[in-house]
Amino acid sequence: MMNSFFLSLLVGLLFSKDYVKPTEIDGKKKWKGEGTTPNLESIVIGRCYEYIRIVNPSVGEKNCTKIWEAFKKAFMNKDPCNILPSDYELFINLSLHTIPPNKSLFWENNHLLVTSYSDRTRRYMPLCDTLIGSFGDFLNWCGQANDTGFNYDSCPTIEECENNAVETFWKIASITYAKQSSGVIYVMLNGSAIGGAYPVKGDSCGRGSVQILEERLKTMGYDITCIDNYKSVLLLKCLDYLNHPDCSIVSSAPSTQKGLVSPDRNGSWSRLIYTIFVVFVFEMCFNTQN
Amino acid sequence: MMNSFFLSLLVGLLFSKDYVKPTEIDGKKKWKGEGTTPNLESIVIGRCYEYIRIVNPSVGEKNCTKIWEAFKKAFMNKDPCNILPSDYELFINLSLHTIPPNKSLFWENNHLLVTSYSDRTRRYMPLCDTLIGSFGDFLNWCGQANDTGFNYDSCPTIEECENNAVETFWKIASITYAKQSSGVIYVMLNGSAIGGAYPVKGDSCGRGSVQILEERLKTMGYDITCIDNYKSVLLLKCLDYLNHPDCSIVSSAPSTQKGLVSPDRNGSWSRLIYTIFVVFVFEMCFNTQN
Repeated sequence: MMNSFFLSLLVGLLFSKDYVKPTEIDGKKKWKGEGTTPNLESIVIGRCYEYIRIVNPSVGEKNCTKIWEAFKKAFMNKDPCNILPSDYELFINLSLHTIPPNKSLFWENNHLLVTSYSDRTRRYMPLCDTLIGSFGDFLNWCGQANDTGFNYDSCPTIEECENNAVETFWKIASITYAKQSSGVIYVMLNGSAIGGAYPVKGDSCGRGSVQILEERLKTMGYDITCIDNYKSVLLLKCLDYLNHPDCSIVSSAPSTQKGLVSPDRNGSWSRLIYTIFVVFVFEMCFNTQN
Repeated sequence: MMNSFFLSLLVGLLFSKDYVKPTEIDGKKKWKGEGTTPNLESIVIGRCYEYIRIVNPSVGEKNCTKIWEAFKKAFMNKDPCNILPSDYELFINLSLHTIPPNKSLFWENNHLLVTSYSDRTRRYMPLCDTLIGSFGDFLNWCGQANDTGFNYDSCPTIEECENNAVETFWKIASITYAKQSSGVIYVMLNGSAIGGAYPVKGDSCGRGSVQILEERLKTMGYDITCIDNYKSVLLLKCLDYLNHPDCSIVSSAPSTQKGLVSPDRNGSWSRLIYTIFVVFVFEMCFNTQN
Protein backbone atom coordinates (compact mmCIF):
# COMPACT_ATOMS: atom_id res chain seq x y z
CA MET A 1 0.00 0.00 0.00
CA MET A 2 2.46 2.62 1.23
CA ASN A 3 4.69 3.92 -1.55
CA SER A 4 3.01 1.69 -4.08
CA PHE A 5 1.40 4.65 -5.76
CA PHE A 6 4.79 5.85 -6.94
CA LEU A 7 5.53 2.48 -8.46
CA SER A 8 2.09 2.36 -10.03
CA LEU A 9 2.87 5.68 -11.68
CA LEU A 10 5.94 4.15 -13.24
CA VAL A 11 4.71 0.68 -14.05
CA GLY A 12 1.07 1.41 -14.66
CA LEU A 13 -1.56 -0.42 -12.67
CA LEU A 14 -0.67 -4.08 -12.95
CA PHE A 15 -3.94 -5.32 -11.57
CA SER A 16 -7.38 -3.89 -12.05
CA LYS A 17 -9.49 -3.32 -8.96
CA ASP A 18 -13.12 -4.16 -8.27
CA TYR A 19 -14.67 -2.08 -5.51
CA VAL A 20 -17.04 -3.65 -3.01
CA LYS A 21 -20.10 -1.82 -1.70
CA PRO A 22 -20.09 -1.07 2.04
CA THR A 23 -22.53 -2.79 4.35
CA GLU A 24 -25.22 -0.39 5.54
CA ILE A 25 -27.10 -1.13 8.78
CA ASP A 26 -29.83 1.30 9.89
CA GLY A 27 -28.41 3.98 7.63
CA LYS A 28 -25.03 3.82 9.42
CA LYS A 29 -22.12 2.40 7.47
CA LYS A 30 -20.17 -0.45 8.97
CA TRP A 31 -16.83 -0.73 7.22
CA LYS A 32 -14.72 -3.82 6.82
CA GLY A 33 -11.42 -2.28 7.90
CA GLU A 34 -10.06 -1.69 11.38
CA GLY A 35 -11.15 1.54 13.08
CA THR A 36 -8.93 4.47 14.06
CA THR A 37 -5.90 3.45 16.16
CA PRO A 38 -6.71 4.37 19.81
CA ASN A 39 -4.71 7.35 21.14
CA LEU A 40 -3.84 8.38 17.59
CA GLU A 41 -3.34 12.03 18.61
CA SER A 42 -0.80 11.22 21.36
CA ILE A 43 1.07 8.75 19.16
CA VAL A 44 1.29 11.08 16.20
CA ILE A 45 2.24 14.26 18.09
CA GLY A 46 4.79 12.22 20.06
CA ARG A 47 6.32 10.82 16.87
CA CYS A 48 6.42 14.28 15.34
CA TYR A 49 8.44 15.74 18.24
CA GLU A 50 10.57 12.59 18.42
CA TYR A 51 11.35 13.09 14.74
CA ILE A 52 12.37 16.74 14.95
CA ARG A 53 14.18 16.45 18.33
CA ILE A 54 15.88 13.05 18.11
CA VAL A 55 15.60 11.19 14.78
CA ASN A 56 16.27 14.04 12.36
CA PRO A 57 16.85 17.43 14.02
CA SER A 58 18.13 18.79 10.69
CA VAL A 59 14.50 19.41 9.63
CA GLY A 60 14.43 22.37 12.03
CA GLU A 61 11.62 23.68 14.21
CA LYS A 62 8.06 22.54 13.45
CA ASN A 63 4.80 23.08 15.35
CA CYS A 64 3.58 19.52 15.77
CA THR A 65 0.22 20.48 17.26
CA LYS A 66 -0.48 22.68 14.25
CA ILE A 67 0.55 19.87 11.88
CA TRP A 68 -1.78 17.50 13.73
CA GLU A 69 -4.70 19.97 13.36
CA ALA A 70 -4.03 20.18 9.62
CA PHE A 71 -3.85 16.38 9.41
CA LYS A 72 -7.21 15.99 11.19
CA LYS A 73 -8.87 18.66 9.05
CA ALA A 74 -8.17 16.58 5.93
CA PHE A 75 -10.73 13.90 6.79
CA MET A 76 -12.79 15.04 9.80
CA ASN A 77 -16.48 15.72 9.29
CA LYS A 78 -16.32 14.35 5.74
CA ASP A 79 -17.56 11.36 3.79
CA PRO A 80 -14.80 8.82 4.55
CA CYS A 81 -14.89 7.62 0.93
CA ASN A 82 -14.34 11.01 -0.59
CA ILE A 83 -11.04 12.27 0.77
CA LEU A 84 -8.96 13.92 -1.92
CA PRO A 85 -5.20 14.55 -2.07
CA SER A 86 -5.89 18.29 -1.92
CA ASP A 87 -7.51 17.80 1.51
CA TYR A 88 -4.04 16.99 2.89
CA GLU A 89 -2.43 20.01 1.21
CA LEU A 90 -2.00 22.15 4.36
CA PHE A 91 -0.73 19.13 6.31
CA ILE A 92 1.85 18.39 3.60
CA ASN A 93 2.99 22.01 3.41
CA LEU A 94 3.49 22.23 7.17
CA SER A 95 5.40 18.96 7.52
CA LEU A 96 7.53 19.06 4.37
CA HIS A 97 11.31 18.79 4.64
CA THR A 98 14.10 17.91 2.23
CA ILE A 99 15.13 14.31 1.54
CA PRO A 100 18.93 14.17 1.24
CA PRO A 101 20.12 13.12 -2.24
CA ASN A 102 20.87 9.37 -2.64
CA LYS A 103 18.78 8.48 0.43
CA SER A 104 15.41 7.74 -1.19
CA LEU A 105 14.22 4.17 -0.93
CA PHE A 106 10.97 3.06 -2.55
CA TRP A 107 9.58 -0.34 -1.71
CA GLU A 108 6.62 -2.70 -1.76
CA ASN A 109 5.66 -5.64 0.49
CA ASN A 110 8.71 -5.28 2.69
CA HIS A 111 7.58 -2.95 5.47
CA LEU A 112 9.40 -4.49 8.47
CA LEU A 113 12.53 -5.34 6.49
CA VAL A 114 12.69 -1.80 5.09
CA THR A 115 12.20 -0.30 8.55
CA SER A 116 15.11 -2.35 9.94
CA TYR A 117 17.28 -1.72 6.91
CA SER A 118 16.79 2.06 6.79
CA ASP A 119 17.58 2.22 10.56
CA ARG A 120 15.69 5.44 11.31
CA THR A 121 17.20 7.51 8.46
CA ARG A 122 20.78 6.39 9.22
CA ARG A 123 21.14 4.12 6.18
CA TYR A 124 18.29 5.32 3.93
CA MET A 125 15.28 7.61 4.27
CA PRO A 126 12.21 5.77 2.97
CA LEU A 127 8.87 7.57 3.20
CA CYS A 128 8.13 6.02 6.61
CA ASP A 129 11.31 7.69 7.93
CA THR A 130 10.17 11.18 6.92
CA LEU A 131 8.08 13.50 9.09
CA ILE A 132 5.10 13.08 6.75
CA GLY A 133 5.40 9.29 6.83
CA SER A 134 5.67 9.22 10.62
CA PHE A 135 2.07 10.50 10.79
CA GLY A 136 0.78 7.32 9.19
CA ASP A 137 3.27 4.50 9.69
CA PHE A 138 1.50 1.41 11.14
CA LEU A 139 -1.55 3.56 11.98
CA ASN A 140 -5.15 3.67 10.85
CA TRP A 141 -7.68 6.49 10.87
CA CYS A 142 -10.95 7.80 9.47
CA GLY A 143 -13.72 10.23 10.30
CA GLN A 144 -17.37 10.34 9.29
CA ALA A 145 -19.74 12.78 7.63
CA ASN A 146 -21.50 15.22 9.98
CA ASP A 147 -19.39 14.22 12.94
CA THR A 148 -16.18 15.84 14.19
CA GLY A 149 -14.94 12.68 15.92
CA PHE A 150 -12.89 9.74 14.73
CA ASN A 151 -14.50 6.46 13.81
CA TYR A 152 -12.90 3.99 16.21
CA ASP A 153 -15.22 1.16 15.17
CA SER A 154 -14.36 0.66 11.53
CA CYS A 155 -12.80 2.37 8.52
CA PRO A 156 -13.24 1.67 4.80
CA THR A 157 -10.77 -0.71 3.17
CA ILE A 158 -9.41 -0.06 -0.32
CA GLU A 159 -11.85 -2.70 -1.60
CA GLU A 160 -14.71 -0.57 -0.25
CA CYS A 161 -13.43 2.72 -1.64
CA GLU A 162 -10.12 3.97 -2.94
CA ASN A 163 -10.54 7.57 -1.78
CA ASN A 164 -10.47 6.72 1.92
CA ALA A 165 -8.44 8.82 4.38
CA VAL A 166 -5.53 6.37 4.64
CA GLU A 167 -5.18 5.54 0.93
CA THR A 168 -5.36 9.19 -0.06
CA PHE A 169 -2.80 10.05 2.60
CA TRP A 170 -0.27 7.55 1.22
CA LYS A 171 -1.06 8.65 -2.32
CA ILE A 172 -0.24 12.32 -1.69
CA ALA A 173 2.60 11.40 0.70
CA SER A 174 4.18 9.18 -2.00
CA ILE A 175 3.82 11.85 -4.68
CA THR A 176 5.38 14.44 -2.39
CA TYR A 177 8.17 12.03 -1.47
CA ALA A 178 8.89 11.27 -5.14
CA LYS A 179 9.01 14.99 -5.94
CA GLN A 180 11.50 15.58 -3.11
CA SER A 181 13.74 12.67 -4.15
CA SER A 182 16.98 13.22 -6.03
CA GLY A 183 20.27 11.56 -6.89
CA VAL A 184 20.57 7.78 -6.76
CA ILE A 185 17.16 6.20 -6.20
CA TYR A 186 16.72 2.78 -4.62
CA VAL A 187 13.73 0.51 -5.00
CA MET A 188 13.41 -2.60 -2.86
CA LEU A 189 10.92 -5.22 -3.96
CA ASN A 190 9.91 -8.53 -2.45
CA GLY A 191 10.14 -11.53 -4.76
CA SER A 192 9.15 -13.94 -1.97
CA ALA A 193 5.66 -15.02 -1.20
CA ILE A 194 4.13 -13.22 1.79
CA GLY A 195 3.96 -15.75 4.60
CA GLY A 196 6.98 -17.44 3.10
CA ALA A 197 6.22 -20.98 4.29
CA TYR A 198 6.53 -22.42 0.77
CA PRO A 199 8.60 -21.28 -2.17
CA VAL A 200 6.22 -19.49 -4.48
CA LYS A 201 7.75 -18.27 -7.73
CA GLY A 202 8.08 -14.52 -7.47
CA ASP A 203 9.47 -11.98 -9.86
CA SER A 204 13.16 -11.34 -10.17
CA CYS A 205 15.32 -8.89 -12.14
CA GLY A 206 14.43 -9.07 -15.86
CA ARG A 207 11.21 -11.01 -15.28
CA GLY A 208 7.52 -10.30 -14.83
CA SER A 209 6.53 -7.02 -13.22
CA VAL A 210 10.15 -6.20 -12.37
CA GLN A 211 10.98 -6.38 -16.07
CA ILE A 212 8.09 -3.98 -16.79
CA LEU A 213 9.49 -1.58 -14.17
CA GLU A 214 13.00 -1.86 -15.60
CA GLU A 215 11.82 -1.24 -19.15
CA ARG A 216 9.64 1.68 -18.15
CA LEU A 217 12.60 3.27 -16.36
CA LYS A 218 14.91 2.64 -19.31
CA THR A 219 12.37 4.23 -21.67
CA MET A 220 12.38 7.25 -19.37
CA GLY A 221 16.13 7.44 -19.94
CA TYR A 222 17.37 6.14 -16.62
CA ASP A 223 20.52 4.07 -16.31
CA ILE A 224 19.34 1.31 -13.99
CA THR A 225 20.96 -1.54 -12.08
CA CYS A 226 18.83 -4.42 -10.81
CA ILE A 227 20.26 -6.79 -8.18
CA ASP A 228 18.62 -9.99 -7.01
CA ASN A 229 19.21 -10.63 -3.30
CA TYR A 230 21.47 -7.66 -2.69
CA LYS A 231 24.02 -8.94 -0.19
CA SER A 232 23.62 -6.23 2.40
CA VAL A 233 19.86 -6.88 2.67
CA LEU A 234 20.38 -10.64 2.68
CA LEU A 235 22.80 -10.28 5.63
CA LEU A 236 20.09 -8.53 7.61
CA LYS A 237 17.80 -11.49 7.02
CA CYS A 238 20.62 -13.96 7.82
CA LEU A 239 21.09 -12.54 11.34
CA ASP A 240 18.18 -14.73 12.39
CA TYR A 241 18.85 -17.69 10.10
CA LEU A 242 22.60 -18.29 10.29
CA ASN A 243 22.30 -21.93 9.19
CA HIS A 244 19.87 -21.37 6.33
CA PRO A 245 21.31 -22.55 2.96
CA ASP A 246 20.80 -19.04 1.52
CA CYS A 247 23.16 -17.82 4.25
CA SER A 248 25.97 -20.20 3.32
CA ILE A 249 28.05 -17.15 2.35
CA VAL A 250 28.40 -16.53 6.08
CA SER A 251 28.88 -20.13 7.17
CA SER A 252 32.69 -20.13 7.42
CA ALA A 253 32.84 -18.92 11.03
CA PRO A 254 33.38 -21.40 13.91
CA SER A 255 30.54 -23.87 14.24
CA THR A 256 30.20 -23.15 17.96
CA GLN A 257 28.59 -19.88 17.01
CA LYS A 258 25.95 -21.46 14.82
CA GLY A 259 22.46 -21.27 16.18
CA LEU A 260 23.55 -20.77 19.76
CA VAL A 261 21.86 -17.51 20.46
CA SER A 262 19.29 -17.20 17.69
CA PRO A 263 18.08 -20.75 17.18
CA ASP A 264 17.86 -21.42 13.49
CA ARG A 265 14.39 -21.68 12.06
CA ASN A 266 15.28 -23.68 8.97
CA GLY A 267 12.10 -25.67 9.01
CA SER A 268 9.80 -22.73 8.54
CA TRP A 269 11.51 -21.28 5.47
CA SER A 270 12.22 -22.99 2.21
CA ARG A 271 13.68 -19.84 0.76
CA LEU A 272 14.83 -17.23 3.22
CA ILE A 273 13.74 -14.21 1.23
CA TYR A 274 13.97 -13.02 -2.31
CA THR A 275 14.55 -9.31 -2.59
CA ILE A 276 15.03 -7.23 -5.69
CA PHE A 277 17.04 -4.05 -5.45
CA VAL A 278 16.65 -1.60 -8.32
CA VAL A 279 19.00 1.36 -8.44
CA PHE A 280 18.87 4.34 -10.80
CA VAL A 281 19.97 7.95 -10.85
CA PHE A 282 17.19 10.48 -10.79
CA GLU A 283 18.53 13.86 -11.78
CA MET A 284 15.48 16.08 -11.86
CA CYS A 285 12.41 16.49 -9.78
CA PHE A 286 9.35 15.53 -11.79
CA ASN A 287 5.82 16.82 -11.70
CA THR A 288 3.09 14.28 -11.19
CA GLN A 289 0.75 16.21 -8.95
CA ASN A 290 -1.32 17.79 -11.68
CA MET B 1 25.02 4.74 31.63
CA MET B 2 21.81 2.85 30.88
CA ASN B 3 21.85 -0.73 32.15
CA SER B 4 25.34 -0.28 33.49
CA PHE B 5 24.09 -0.37 37.06
CA PHE B 6 23.13 -4.01 36.64
CA LEU B 7 26.62 -4.86 35.46
CA SER B 8 28.11 -2.83 38.30
CA LEU B 9 26.09 -4.94 40.70
CA LEU B 10 27.71 -8.04 39.27
CA VAL B 11 31.22 -6.86 38.61
CA GLY B 12 31.58 -4.23 41.31
CA LEU B 13 32.51 -0.71 40.36
CA LEU B 14 35.51 -1.02 38.11
CA PHE B 15 36.39 2.63 38.27
CA SER B 16 36.10 5.00 41.19
CA LYS B 17 34.31 8.29 40.61
CA ASP B 18 35.23 11.82 41.69
CA TYR B 19 32.28 14.18 41.87
CA VAL B 20 32.62 17.75 40.66
CA LYS B 21 30.96 20.68 42.42
CA PRO B 22 28.33 22.54 40.38
CA THR B 23 28.92 26.09 39.25
CA GLU B 24 26.79 28.54 41.21
CA ILE B 25 25.94 31.92 39.70
CA ASP B 26 23.81 34.36 41.73
CA GLY B 27 22.62 31.49 43.91
CA LYS B 28 21.21 29.70 40.84
CA LYS B 29 22.91 26.49 39.80
CA LYS B 30 24.12 26.19 36.25
CA TRP B 31 24.72 22.54 35.50
CA LYS B 32 27.12 21.13 32.97
CA GLY B 33 24.70 18.68 31.32
CA GLU B 34 22.10 19.35 28.66
CA GLY B 35 18.72 20.59 29.87
CA THR B 36 15.40 18.76 29.62
CA THR B 37 14.58 17.57 26.07
CA PRO B 38 12.01 20.03 24.63
CA ASN B 39 8.49 18.57 24.28
CA LEU B 40 9.41 15.77 26.68
CA GLU B 41 5.76 15.26 27.70
CA SER B 42 4.51 14.77 24.12
CA ILE B 43 7.42 12.49 23.23
CA VAL B 44 7.04 10.30 26.29
CA ILE B 45 3.24 9.97 26.25
CA GLY B 46 3.42 9.27 22.52
CA ARG B 47 6.02 6.55 23.01
CA CYS B 48 3.97 5.03 25.81
CA TYR B 49 0.87 4.66 23.62
CA GLU B 50 3.00 3.56 20.66
CA TYR B 51 4.44 0.85 22.91
CA ILE B 52 1.13 -0.52 24.19
CA ARG B 53 -0.76 -0.16 20.86
CA ILE B 54 1.88 -1.09 18.28
CA VAL B 55 5.24 -2.31 19.59
CA ASN B 56 4.08 -4.67 22.33
CA PRO B 57 0.28 -4.85 22.76
CA SER B 58 0.73 -7.93 24.98
CA VAL B 59 1.41 -5.59 27.95
CA GLY B 60 -2.30 -4.79 28.00
CA GLU B 61 -4.07 -1.53 28.79
CA LYS B 62 -2.12 1.22 30.58
CA ASN B 63 -3.01 4.83 31.38
CA CYS B 64 -0.09 6.68 29.84
CA THR B 65 -1.11 10.09 31.19
CA LYS B 66 -1.20 8.68 34.72
CA ILE B 67 2.22 7.05 34.21
CA TRP B 68 3.59 10.39 32.98
CA GLU B 69 2.24 12.15 36.09
CA ALA B 70 3.97 9.57 38.29
CA PHE B 71 7.19 9.97 36.29
CA LYS B 72 7.11 13.77 36.73
CA LYS B 73 6.36 13.55 40.44
CA ALA B 74 9.63 11.65 41.00
CA PHE B 75 11.81 14.71 40.37
CA MET B 76 9.61 17.81 40.10
CA ASN B 77 9.96 20.49 42.78
CA LYS B 78 12.97 18.69 44.28
CA ASP B 79 16.71 19.22 44.63
CA PRO B 80 17.91 17.78 41.27
CA CYS B 81 20.87 16.13 43.05
CA ASN B 82 18.79 14.27 45.57
CA ILE B 83 16.45 12.03 43.58
CA LEU B 84 16.18 8.57 45.13
CA PRO B 85 15.09 5.27 43.53
CA SER B 86 12.04 5.27 45.82
CA ASP B 87 10.88 8.53 44.18
CA TYR B 88 10.21 6.55 40.99
CA GLU B 89 8.34 3.77 42.83
CA LEU B 90 4.81 4.73 41.70
CA PHE B 91 6.04 5.25 38.12
CA ILE B 92 7.66 1.80 38.11
CA ASN B 93 4.58 0.12 39.56
CA LEU B 94 2.30 1.68 36.96
CA SER B 95 4.49 0.87 33.96
CA LEU B 96 5.72 -2.59 34.93
CA HIS B 97 5.16 -5.53 32.58
CA THR B 98 6.72 -8.95 32.18
CA ILE B 99 9.88 -9.56 30.17
CA PRO B 100 9.50 -12.83 28.23
CA PRO B 101 12.02 -15.51 29.31
CA ASN B 102 15.20 -15.68 27.16
CA LYS B 103 14.65 -12.17 25.79
CA SER B 104 16.71 -10.11 28.27
CA LEU B 105 19.72 -8.35 26.82
CA PHE B 106 22.05 -6.34 29.04
CA TRP B 107 24.67 -4.15 27.44
CA GLU B 108 27.14 -1.33 27.79
CA ASN B 109 28.52 1.20 25.27
CA ASN B 110 26.52 -0.20 22.37
CA HIS B 111 23.31 1.82 22.41
CA LEU B 112 22.67 2.19 18.66
CA LEU B 113 23.89 -1.30 17.81
CA VAL B 114 21.68 -2.82 20.53
CA THR B 115 18.68 -0.81 19.34
CA SER B 116 19.12 -2.11 15.78
CA TYR B 117 19.85 -5.63 16.94
CA SER B 118 16.88 -5.97 19.28
CA ASP B 119 14.58 -4.65 16.48
CA ARG B 120 11.84 -3.23 18.74
CA THR B 121 11.41 -6.39 20.89
CA ARG B 122 11.32 -8.73 17.89
CA ARG B 123 14.76 -10.27 18.46
CA TYR B 124 15.47 -9.32 22.09
CA MET B 125 13.90 -7.06 24.71
CA PRO B 126 16.65 -4.89 26.21
CA LEU B 127 15.62 -2.31 28.82
CA CYS B 128 15.18 0.40 26.15
CA ASP B 129 12.56 -1.83 24.48
CA THR B 130 10.41 -2.04 27.63
CA LEU B 131 7.69 0.45 28.57
CA ILE B 132 9.82 1.73 31.47
CA GLY B 133 12.84 2.18 29.24
CA SER B 134 10.82 4.00 26.58
CA PHE B 135 10.29 6.85 29.07
CA GLY B 136 14.00 7.59 29.12
CA ASP B 137 15.63 6.32 25.94
CA PHE B 138 17.70 9.10 24.29
CA LEU B 139 16.00 11.70 26.53
CA ASN B 140 17.14 14.06 29.24
CA TRP B 141 15.23 15.67 32.10
CA CYS B 142 15.46 17.39 35.47
CA GLY B 143 13.47 19.69 37.71
CA GLN B 144 14.55 22.16 40.38
CA ALA B 145 13.85 22.81 44.05
CA ASN B 146 10.86 25.09 44.76
CA ASP B 147 9.75 25.09 41.15
CA THR B 148 7.19 22.82 39.50
CA GLY B 149 8.67 23.28 35.99
CA PHE B 150 11.37 21.46 34.11
CA ASN B 151 14.84 22.88 33.81
CA TYR B 152 15.32 23.29 30.07
CA ASP B 153 18.61 25.16 30.47
CA SER B 154 20.82 22.57 32.12
CA CYS B 155 20.77 19.36 34.16
CA PRO B 156 23.42 17.86 36.44
CA THR B 157 25.82 15.37 34.91
CA ILE B 158 26.93 12.26 36.80
CA GLU B 159 30.20 14.06 37.53
CA GLU B 160 28.23 16.78 39.33
CA CYS B 161 26.04 14.40 41.31
CA GLU B 162 25.13 10.74 41.06
CA ASN B 163 21.61 11.08 42.45
CA ASN B 164 20.31 13.14 39.57
CA ALA B 165 16.92 12.40 37.99
CA VAL B 166 18.30 10.57 34.95
CA GLU B 167 20.92 8.44 36.75
CA THR B 168 18.47 7.43 39.45
CA PHE B 169 15.89 6.58 36.79
CA TRP B 170 18.25 4.18 35.00
CA LYS B 171 19.39 2.73 38.32
CA ILE B 172 15.87 1.76 39.44
CA ALA B 173 14.86 0.86 35.87
CA SER B 174 17.87 -1.50 35.60
CA ILE B 175 17.18 -3.12 38.97
CA THR B 176 13.53 -3.63 38.03
CA TYR B 177 14.54 -5.02 34.64
CA ALA B 178 17.02 -7.44 36.24
CA LYS B 179 14.35 -8.62 38.69
CA GLN B 180 11.94 -9.28 35.82
CA SER B 181 14.51 -11.17 33.75
CA SER B 182 14.50 -14.96 33.52
CA GLY B 183 15.78 -17.83 31.42
CA VAL B 184 18.78 -17.36 29.15
CA ILE B 185 20.36 -13.96 29.78
CA TYR B 186 22.43 -12.15 27.16
CA VAL B 187 25.02 -9.48 27.80
CA MET B 188 26.48 -7.52 24.92
CA LEU B 189 29.68 -5.59 25.59
CA ASN B 190 31.77 -3.37 23.37
CA GLY B 191 35.44 -4.27 23.15
CA SER B 192 36.11 -1.50 20.61
CA ALA B 193 37.15 1.99 21.43
CA ILE B 194 34.32 4.50 21.23
CA GLY B 195 34.89 6.60 18.13
CA GLY B 196 36.65 3.63 16.62
CA ALA B 197 39.08 5.58 14.43
CA TYR B 198 42.08 3.73 15.82
CA PRO B 199 42.39 0.22 17.18
CA VAL B 200 42.57 0.61 20.93
CA LYS B 201 43.06 -2.63 22.81
CA GLY B 202 39.76 -3.44 24.44
CA ASP B 203 38.68 -6.32 26.60
CA SER B 204 37.70 -9.66 25.16
CA CYS B 205 36.37 -12.94 26.59
CA GLY B 206 38.65 -14.17 29.38
CA ARG B 207 40.48 -10.85 29.71
CA GLY B 208 40.29 -7.69 31.78
CA SER B 209 36.89 -6.58 33.02
CA VAL B 210 35.13 -9.27 30.96
CA GLN B 211 37.12 -11.89 32.84
CA ILE B 212 36.01 -10.32 36.14
CA LEU B 213 32.38 -10.51 34.96
CA GLU B 214 32.79 -14.13 33.84
CA GLU B 215 34.38 -15.17 37.14
CA ARG B 216 31.79 -13.35 39.21
CA LEU B 217 29.01 -15.12 37.31
CA LYS B 218 30.73 -18.50 37.65
CA THR B 219 31.10 -17.94 41.42
CA MET B 220 27.37 -17.25 41.51
CA GLY B 221 26.89 -20.70 39.97
CA TYR B 222 25.97 -19.73 36.43
CA ASP B 223 26.99 -21.76 33.42
CA ILE B 224 28.22 -19.07 31.07
CA THR B 225 29.29 -18.87 27.44
CA CYS B 226 31.35 -15.92 26.23
CA ILE B 227 31.66 -15.27 22.49
CA ASP B 228 33.98 -12.72 20.89
CA ASN B 229 32.42 -11.10 17.82
CA TYR B 230 29.25 -13.17 17.77
CA LYS B 231 28.54 -13.71 14.10
CA SER B 232 24.96 -12.48 14.08
CA VAL B 233 25.99 -9.12 15.58
CA LEU B 234 28.99 -8.85 13.27
CA LEU B 235 26.72 -9.35 10.25
CA LEU B 236 24.64 -6.37 11.35
CA LYS B 237 27.79 -4.24 11.39
CA CYS B 238 28.95 -5.71 8.03
CA LEU B 239 25.79 -4.48 6.24
CA ASP B 240 27.52 -1.12 5.93
CA TYR B 241 31.09 -2.35 5.52
CA LEU B 242 30.87 -5.24 3.03
CA ASN B 243 34.52 -4.90 2.00
CA HIS B 244 35.99 -4.51 5.47
CA PRO B 245 38.56 -7.26 6.28
CA ASP B 246 36.51 -8.26 9.36
CA CYS B 247 33.63 -8.98 6.93
CA SER B 248 35.67 -11.36 4.76
CA ILE B 249 33.32 -14.15 5.88
CA VAL B 250 30.74 -12.56 3.60
CA SER B 251 33.04 -11.70 0.70
CA SER B 252 32.27 -14.70 -1.52
CA ALA B 253 29.32 -13.10 -3.33
CA PRO B 254 29.75 -11.55 -6.79
CA SER B 255 32.07 -8.57 -6.77
CA THR B 256 29.53 -6.42 -8.61
CA GLN B 257 27.60 -6.26 -5.38
CA LYS B 258 30.50 -4.96 -3.36
CA GLY B 259 30.16 -1.40 -2.26
CA LEU B 260 27.64 -0.51 -4.95
CA VAL B 261 24.85 0.67 -2.76
CA SER B 262 26.53 1.28 0.60
CA PRO B 263 29.94 2.64 -0.33
CA ASP B 264 32.53 0.96 1.83
CA ARG B 265 34.07 3.12 4.50
CA ASN B 266 37.27 1.10 4.97
CA GLY B 267 39.40 4.13 5.55
CA SER B 268 37.63 5.24 8.69
CA TRP B 269 37.82 1.93 10.55
CA SER B 270 40.85 -0.09 11.39
CA ARG B 271 38.79 -2.64 13.22
CA LEU B 272 35.12 -2.78 12.40
CA ILE B 273 33.86 -3.51 15.89
CA TYR B 274 34.73 -5.81 18.70
CA THR B 275 31.71 -7.12 20.55
CA ILE B 276 31.57 -9.55 23.42
CA PHE B 277 28.47 -11.64 23.89
CA VAL B 278 28.04 -13.28 27.28
CA VAL B 279 25.27 -15.82 27.67
CA PHE B 280 24.08 -17.47 30.87
CA VAL B 281 20.93 -19.06 32.23
CA PHE B 282 19.28 -17.17 35.03
CA GLU B 283 16.76 -19.39 36.75
CA MET B 284 15.48 -17.31 39.63
CA CYS B 285 14.52 -13.71 40.13
CA PHE B 286 16.92 -12.08 42.58
CA ASN B 287 16.43 -9.35 45.11
CA THR B 288 18.75 -6.41 44.90
CA GLN B 289 16.42 -3.56 45.69
CA ASN B 290 16.92 -3.58 49.46
